[in-house]
This record gives sequence, structure tokens and C-alpha cells, in this order.
Amino acid sequence: MLLNVSCSLEFSSETTVPSIFMLHPQSGNAQFVVRNELLTTPYTPVIEFPDIYRNLCQRIIIPSGSFKLESRALVDCSDTVDVNMYASWIPMPELPDHVLQFLLPSRYCESDKFADLAIKLTEGCAPGYQQVDAICKWINGSIRYEYGTTNSSTSAADVLATKVGVCRDFTHLGITLCRSLDIPARMVAGYLYDLKPMDLHAWFEAYVGGRWYCFDATQREPKGGRIVLAYGRDAADVAFVSHFGNAVLKEMIVNVQLS
Amino acid sequence: MLLNVSCSLEFSSETTVPSIFMLHPQSGNAQFVVRNELLTTPYTPVIEFPDIYRNLCQRIIIPSGSFKLESRALVDCSDTVDVNMYASWIPMPELPDHVLQFLLPSRYCESDKFADLAIKLTEGCAPGYQQVDAICKWINGSIRYEYGTTNSSTSAADVLATKVGVCRDFTHLGITLCRSLDIPARMVAGYLYDLKPMDLHAWFEAYVGGRWYCFDATQREPKGGRIVLAYGRDAADVAFVSHFGNAVLKEMIVNVQLS
Amino acid sequence: MLLNVSCSLEFSSETTVPSIFMLHPQSGNAQFVVRNELLTTPYTPVIEFPDIYRNLCQRIIIPSGSFKLESRALVDCSDTVDVNMYASWIPMPELPDHVLQFLLPSRYCESDKFADLAIKLTEGCAPGYQQVDAICKWINGSIRYEYGTTNSSTSAADVLATKVGVCRDFTHLGITLCRSLDIPARMVAGYLYDLKPMDLHAWFEAYVGGRWYCFDATQREPKGGRIVLAYGRDAADVAFVSHFGNAVLKEMIVNVQLS
Amino acid sequence: MLLNVSCSLEFSSETTVPSIFMLHPQSGNAQFVVRNELLTTPYTPVIEFPDIYRNLCQRIIIPSGSFKLESRALVDCSDTVDVNMYASWIPMPELPDHVLQFLLPSRYCESDKFADLAIKLTEGCAPGYQQVDAICKWINGSIRYEYGTTNSSTSAADVLATKVGVCRDFTHLGITLCRSLDIPARMVAGYLYDLKPMDLHAWFEAYVGGRWYCFDATQREPKGGRIVLAYGRDAADVAFVSHFGNAVLKEMIVNVQLS
Repeated sequence: MLLNVSCSLEFSSETTVPSIFMLHPQSGNAQFVVRNELLTTPYTPVIEFPDIYRNLCQRIIIPSGSFKLESRALVDCSDTVDVNMYASWIPMPELPDHVLQFLLPSRYCESDKFADLAIKLTEGCAPGYQQVDAICKWINGSIRYEYGTTNSSTSAADVLATKVGVCRDFTHLGITLCRSLDIPARMVAGYLYDLKPMDLHAWFEAYVGGRWYCFDATQREPKGGRIVLAYGRDAADVAFVSHFGNAVLKEMIVNVQLS
Repeated sequence: MLLNVSCSLEFSSETTVPSIFMLHPQSGNAQFVVRNELLTTPYTPVIEFPDIYRNLCQRIIIPSGSFKLESRALVDCSDTVDVNMYASWIPMPELPDHVLQFLLPSRYCESDKFADLAIKLTEGCAPGYQQVDAICKWINGSIRYEYGTTNSSTSAADVLATKVGVCRDFTHLGITLCRSLDIPARMVAGYLYDLKPMDLHAWFEAYVGGRWYCFDATQREPKGGRIVLAYGRDAADVAFVSHFGNAVLKEMIVNVQLS
Repeated sequence: MLLNVSCSLEFSSETTVPSIFMLHPQSGNAQFVVRNELLTTPYTPVIEFPDIYRNLCQRIIIPSGSFKLESRALVDCSDTVDVNMYASWIPMPELPDHVLQFLLPSRYCESDKFADLAIKLTEGCAPGYQQVDAICKWINGSIRYEYGTTNSSTSAADVLATKVGVCRDFTHLGITLCRSLDIPARMVAGYLYDLKPMDLHAWFEAYVGGRWYCFDATQREPKGGRIVLAYGRDAADVAFVSHFGNAVLKEMIVNVQLS
Repeated sequence: MLLNVSCSLEFSSETTVPSIFMLHPQSGNAQFVVRNELLTTPYTPVIEFPDIYRNLCQRIIIPSGSFKLESRALVDCSDTVDVNMYASWIPMPELPDHVLQFLLPSRYCESDKFADLAIKLTEGCAPGYQQVDAICKWINGSIRYEYGTTNSSTSAADVLATKVGVCRDFTHLGITLCRSLDIPARMVAGYLYDLKPMDLHAWFEAYVGGRWYCFDATQREPKGGRIVLAYGRDAADVAFVSHFGNAVLKEMIVNVQLS
């Protein structure tokens, strides 16, 4: 499906604020970016570089006063999500080199502490896709979705304790449980068609059956219409903006529409 | 300066033809791409990947019949070219690792054969920028610019023999002479503002004084307004299209205009 | 100084256990490996690959029964550590791309929670080296070094609470405090000459004044004689072994001697 | 098979000569390096770095006077070479990204000029392994092996004209003919067990049937016992030494023996 997506951010700050954004979708196996635009008001230089995961990052020194950044794109992506209950667990010796890093614990995914729970939740499942599916269903049924209950320091362990969070937290918990079963899992930040209320979204991918599959613990069944902005170990890697100074986000408008 | 650039290609072919294009400018230290568009008619999937030089390449299976590809971009680039007659030659032990490959001979740049000529042409020059400058001036004065005199097999040695060629040949000769003096040099393919007649263009960069400087042997003084499409060792690396089959290019229109 | 280093590990396991080791020093700017050996008893295939930080990792399927791995090397390294109280803090816009990742929080370094403490500890310091130095001195004076008090799940926040730990914990705390001041910091695992009792060691590097400097919060003044095995964000990235199954480490002997 | 290999080089020069060596085998899928040694007399610093093909390169400033470099290794490699007459040609759209560069012409492999010959030589062959096999057999039967007939400027086109050369030339011709059929091919430099007379050797790999296969046009049937030192497009990429100045190679002794 062909989607018109945009994210418009308005900042206010008293000084210049060096910042890194990750708001530029790029073409790849999962999507093709027909058109891509990054508008700054007032016009401000942007330096773009790929991080270690090959995500596009934008360095911008936000000027003092009022600043607006708008990223718009026309992107072709799949309108469905691949499901394969027979995709099996891949033992470490057969995992490609670049996938191994997604077995490690990370800032918000303390997978070194979750083995018991993961084993319990996936009892009786065939190793692989079915385990991840069981994990997602459990999260979807056990964690309450509520804005404002968590913050940028909330990790999977915190979410497990409070049983409440937003897409980012659902995702961290899913990733953590997968990794504790030696299933590689990575975070995805991006746009999702028909999300209500509309916002930037986060989900995850698990490597089973020899490839990455998409999972979204905030949904009963993962839907298509996903535009990827960034992949990473967890939210530390895929923040849509990191400020090095104080900038106040006055307004954020996200739009995803059929072209 | 803010430039609107576009390249429109029309192909005709009897079968499907797998092809690789390099027509997508990307943001970097030299330029910022405000808007980027890649249009295919009929609509055809595009897979994009970075090559070993980090250029963006587009894999497209050209459909049989008539096919049109248009790449359009709005790009911010410098309106001047840095000149520094004092930028000195960097001995190999102080060159960064990633620059060393641009000392090697390549398909169209037989630098292993040009040392005598390069030494003669640069007699009396301070090692570094001044040598490259002398090389460019010599090429500009000695090689005649004429369309249709060379083809995709013409190398620097051929150009030296016939003393005639186009931008690609001028560039190969410049690169070859630099490398034979142990000055790293790389080819650049891209757009040039105010080029007459308008077309895609090629020039080169030499690494002196600790950074890459732009040189263009087709001009007396290199002008700004340059949008980079690809970097490489020579034309083998930066072809705007490589076909794996027979496709006929019916029309090619290049446009570069002030925004 | 030329050091003969070795690490000998003896495992016992009931099944085969896929494992990843990081025990192979490699040559680079910091050290030159004259000789390198990796011995397995019984003889077992080793697949080596570089991770995203370019560390050498060894995949080995530990056979059931008894297994011995010995890594030996003869390495040339500096016998001192560079100290530069004038190396200043580098603002984010001037940091190289590949350094930026070491500003992010990670599994054992919750730098998003430590800003207040870091500011207090470095009051009056010139931004940069002096801050990192003050952090190390504070850790050295405030945290008690004691084996067996922490485990593989202990993070900087845990260490701050209990005020006790080993080299790994001292290092995590140092890294965390640096990052909370927007100073890039990375963990180093390796050998240290004259360490008592002899063992593998961990320390960290901070990026100030345009380069990485070595810091070791377990010492009053960092000493030279350091052989690097791996760099990473924290202990999750640089574990000398990660098992995917149950292998018991029966014996570990580390040796570092002047050649 | 476990091989003890060594290459000892003795140089003489009047000044210091910055040089790049490629004499350090590394572990990978094709081989495991149990022990690795690089000895310099007089003792001289070595800086090692990976090039764009991930080969290990050693920067050494050869001191004036007499200098000796000895690389020794104990390496485990296959004692046979995989042969698969059914490995089929892979169309470009299905080739992995990193393989595409080995379709391009390069300094010593003017594949843009060899299509007619390649088609003639492989008439009747199934596309893929059988074509490469036919190419090797033709080279083996048509080109005379003779030392001293070619030099560092000799390309595939030159060899085709003179019909004489050494392993490097046989390899260039093989690679060139493969690429002109859109079969990716890369050069390999290394050691070969039982080579007579013993020397460093060169051969090539072609990508058919979804993987790289080894070919050696200097042999009727390619034998095993191969230790890889470097991969590249052609000899420009894999030279065992490149000097930036004048050093005279006084003696070179290569040894390959069963351990």
C-alpha cells in the first residue's frame, strides 16, 4: 500500500540545542520510499549520517526561539504482516553474525532476569514463532495500555512490576522475553496506518525460521501498513529525537494516509 | 545554493532487464537533500542498497516495453569550491585507512603507467594541491572536449593517446596522474549547475592537506553548484545505470535549476 | 612494553554448548599483536567474526565432557597511560558519527538517571578530562572493591546503592556518570600487567579533547601495560564468554608477563 | 588439513619506505588460524587495519638499511575443493548486495571487452559452474605458464594477446571471462600446499549456485590446501606488498608444510 506519512514537530528553546533526529524513512527490503522531504523552519542545516544499524540520523542544531521540523514521505509498504506458525527457533551456531547482537540484554530489556517467566509463558509451544506469538498474546492480555504511566527511564522490569504502559513498554517486554529464550529480537520505530490515536509507534521483530518477523503486542493480530524509521536494540537506539540541551516540544502532529 | 535537479530516463526493451541505477543523491557533509523523489512509469518496485562506498544504488527490473524513470531532488549545496594552494601532500603513513584504496590503479586509471608524465607535469610544484592544480590545467589545455569520441571502454591511457574525450575521460586522466604521485583521488558523478549543454557530469576529488578537495579538469576554475550522486574509484563504480540485458535508452533529460 | 599474555579456561558440560568467546586481541592503534594463538583441547573448530564494534568474536561449540580453551598472545603495548587535564569536553555537533552511540544509556549504565550526581561530583571541574578524573577519584574513594558481592545482573544503579563491587562495576559506574554529562564513554575488557590478583580486567575510555583516553576507577592513577580484548557499551557487549546452554567453568588461569 | 605456512621477505633500502603488506591470514568460514605471527627484524612497529574487503593490511615503515619481515601461521583448511557442476548461474536480481561489485570491470580485468570470447568458449554449457569450468579448462590449455614474461602492469587483455603468463595472469583472465558473462568473480591471494616451485599463489572464486566456488586455471583440477591471505577485485587489491618509495626485495622464501 502507498502511504503518505508526515511528522511535524514544533520546538521552543532559549538557547541553541544540538539534537539528533531519526525521522527519515529509507528504502530497503521492507519498504520503498518514493518521495522524502525534511523541512526546517527557519531553514537550518541538516547533517545526515547512518548509525551502526544503518538507520539514517539527522544532526540539527535547533536555533533558539521557535523551530519547526517536518518530515514527509510517500512510501510503499506491505498491507499485511507475514505470519508463520511453523517458523522455528534457530540455534545460535546457525544465526548470521549480524543477528547475534540482538540476543544481548540492553538498557530497557533486562533479558538476563526473565528466563523463568518466559519459559512459563511459552510452555507447550514449539520453539520459535509460536513462542513469540504466545509472549505477545500474554502481554496483550496482561498489560494495560495507558498514556502517561511510564517515562523515558521505564524498562521491561518496571513494566512487569506495574503492568501498565504504552507501545514502547509493550515492545520492551516482548523483546526481553524473546531474548531470554535465546530468540533474537529488535525494536522498530515507525508509522502505523490506522493507529488510534495517531502517533509514532513502536513494535518489534523476532528472528525465527531464518528471517525477521514482525510482532506487535499492542494488537491482537499485527496489521500491515508499517513504515520503518529505525531499528535498534531498544528505545535507547531509536529515539525520534535526542536533545543535548533544553528544547521544549510544543506540538507534535503525526499523519498517515492512503495515497 | 538550493538546486532543483532531475534526471529523466526513457527506456525501451523487448524483455525485462535487471538494472542498477545510481541516481539518488543523499545527504552528507557536502550537501543536504531537502526532498528526494524516484518515480517509475509504469510503477515498478525499487530495492535500494548502499555499495561499499556507501553510495545509494537502486535495483530495478525494467519491464518490457516502454519504461520511464525520473529522479528529482531539491538539494542544498555550496555555491563555491574550496581552493587551497597550501594544502600539502600527505605521506601514506598519515593517510586514514579508508583513503588508501584511492591510491590503487583501477579499470580506467592505469596509474601504474603514468609516473613519468606526472612528475614532468608537476615539476616545480609544492607537493599536494599545487600538483593536482597543475595536472588539471595541463589536461584542460591539452585534451580536446568532444562528444562521441570515446566510449565505455576508454581508459586514461587511451585518452592520453588520442588527446580527446568527454568529462569522464578528463576525470580519469586527472585521477590517474594524481595516483601515480601517491595522491589519493576518487571519481565523483553528479549534477553541475549551469553546465552547457546540460547533462550528468563527472569530476574528481584529491585528498591533500588532510581532506578531499574538488577538481574539475573540464573547467579553468572549478565552479560550485555540485550535487553528488556517487563516489568511486572510476567510472566502473559510478555508472548511473548498469543493465544486465538489452535496454535501449530512448531519451535522457537532465535539469538543474535554482530553487 | 612487550607482554606475554594468556587465558586458559577449562569447561565441563553434559551436552554440547554453543558459545561465543572474546579472547583474541587484535592489532590496532593501541597495540600490536606479534603472535596470537588459540588452542582447543580436544581440537574443536572455531569460527571467527567481527561484531559491530569490530571486536573479534569466536564461535565455538563446546563439546560435551571436558573442554579446554587457551588463548595466548605476545603483544606490544604502551607502558604508560596518556593523561591530559586540558583535554576538553567536545560538544555533540563536533563528535564523530561513530562516537555518538557511546552517549546512550545501556544495559548496565542507566545514564538517564545519574545527571544530578554527576553534576555534583564534578562541581568546579573544567568540562572534559577533569570531570572524568573527578568521577574516577570519587568512585575509587567511595566504592569498596570486594569479590563475590555482585553478579552478571548488577548495574551501575545497583552499585551506587550497595557501594561495593569489582572492576566491572567500577567501570559501569564511571561510564554511566560520564554519559550523564554528555561525555562519550565505552567499556574495555582486557589484560592488565601486574594486576593483583591476576585476572581478566575491565576499565573504560572517555572521549575528550578529540580522542579516547583511558580511565581506571579501580586505581588511583591508571597504569599502562593494557592489552585490549574488546570494546563495547558495557559488559553485555564484551563478555569473555557467552554460553547458549550449560557449561561449568572448572578453572580459569590468566597470565601476564614481561617478554 | 593443518598447515604450517610462512613467508619471509628481506628488503634493502637507502631511506625509510612506508609500505602496506597483506600477509596475515585471518580466521573465517574458509579457514581457522590456530597461530599467527608477524616478526620484524629490526623490531619495527606495525599498524594493522581492515580494508573494504575486510582483509587485514599491515602498515609498516621499512627502516633504511636491511629489513626482514616474516609472517608465520598454523592454519586449518579444507584438503579438498568443492566441485558442483550443477551450481547454476544466479541472475543479478537474486545476487546479494555485497557480491554485485565483483561483476564490474577492474584494473587488470577489462571484462567490458571479453563478452564475445566468453560466449564462444562456453557454448553448450549450462549457465553457471559449467561455464566457469569451461573457461578454466580453456585457459589451462591455451595459456603457457612461464615466469618473467609478464609484469605488474599486465592485464587480462595483454595475456590474451601474448598467451603467456603466471598464476596472477591466469587468474585475471579467468575472472575477466566470468564477469563478461555476468558471473561475479573475485581474486584470491594466498598459500597453496604442494605448489611447485613453492611461492605465494593466486586463484579465483566465482559466485554460482548461491555461494563462492574456488577455481584455479593453473591446475587441471583445483586441489585443496589453500590458505587465504586476501580477497579483491584483482591484483591491485591483493598485492602482498605495496611500497611508497624504493625498497629492494633481496630474498623471498615461502614455506607450506603439513603440521
